[in-house]
Amino acid sequence: MNTRNRILDAAAQLLAEEGWSAASVSEVAKRAGVTRGAVQHHFTDREGLFTVAIEYVLENRVAEFHDQAKGFPAGPGRTLAVVRTVVEQHQGASFAATLQLCVAAHGEPALRPRVAAMEAEMGAKYYWALIELLRLDGSDPKVRTTVQAFLDSARGLGLAGFIGDDSRRRERVTRRWAEMIDELSA
Amino acid sequence: MNTRNRILDAAAQLLAEEGWSAASVSEVAKRAGVTRGAVQHHFTDREGLFTVAIEYVLENRVAEFHDQAKGFPAGPGRTLAVVRTVVEQHQGASFAATLQLCVAAHGEPALRPRVAAMEAEMGAKYYWALIELLRLDGSDPKVRTTVQAFLDSARGLGLAGFIGDDSRRRERVTRRWAEMIDELSA
Repeated sequence: MNTRNRILDAAAQLLAEEGWSAASVSEVAKRAGVTRGAVQHHFTDREGLFTVAIEYVLENRVAEFHDQAKGFPAGPGRTLAVVRTVVEQHQGASFAATLQLCVAAHGEPALRPRVAAMEAEMGAKYYWALIELLRLDGSDPKVRTTVQAFLDSARGLGLAGFIGDDSRRRERVTRRWAEMIDELSA
Repeated sequence: MNTRNRILDAAAQLLAEEGWSAASVSEVAKRAGVTRGAVQHHFTDREGLFTVAIEYVLENRVAEFHDQAKGFPAGPGRTLAVVRTVVEQHQGASFAATLQLCVAAHGEPALRPRVAAMEAEMGAKYYWALIELLRLDGSDPKVRTTVQAFLDSARGLGLAGFIGDDSRRRERVTRRWAEMIDELSA
């Protein structure tokens, strides 16, 4: 991993674990094993560093999605495999990091427009990756709103899993989503 | 409003606006117009105060829901009215306050089990209020998982609306949810 990605990785992990108020540039440098100057060489300010770190997390999510999809069945079971991957990608450290940035952005006027723009761009990328893997017509209004409802639901499941073990309920909702999405092409 | 509710109201508002790290007992007392001692008379510790404040927010949400439902149509349009109310109840200050507590609970071992227990209890109350207003069979597994998926989606829409104006997309997803829920009893 190159220095820039090592910094981004450390920043996302730190944000996930400690939240925005504890996430300083010096702590990122320490975790990445580089100097503070090295971080500042790559990123002009703290807001930019963490926004790019989450963009990096979300880019990785899309890449990982395409990667895992190589092992998905072509016929029955494909939708469930896709849906489950999306739901699980909204759990754990990467969800925690994006959530912490979102909460920080709410309270910091300097951060908010940057995070909103990055989220909108990455949200669209993720939507189209999902549409492609589900082999649906993403420009059909019914498909679009259903898949968006599913993505909102995945975020909601992320929140629910954030403070307690919600895995059994999550599995039931995941299976129901696979059915609802399959009904779109029935 | 009695003193206890005035304190809870001030606590929820403060949490929504400033987040956990800035939400002190003295600031709550100041906003509620009472002494710090008065707050301590009602609540033994800071964690308890804010957990009860969010429980109060969520109780009010259920009460408000029943209240608004008196004006809902009995026939066509009822589902959309119910769905829209749920979605809008997951926007704005009350969503911000619950989200801030959830994020705080993630990082504070002393807070986490209390918040998880309170959320589970209030989540069940809200679910059954929704089932009753939709006139559905809440013990049917398909109904249960669909309505849970909807509630997760409402939380996800809350997150999306937290950093940007998402109202147009939210309205489309809301309408789609009314269709999906109506299909349950078709």
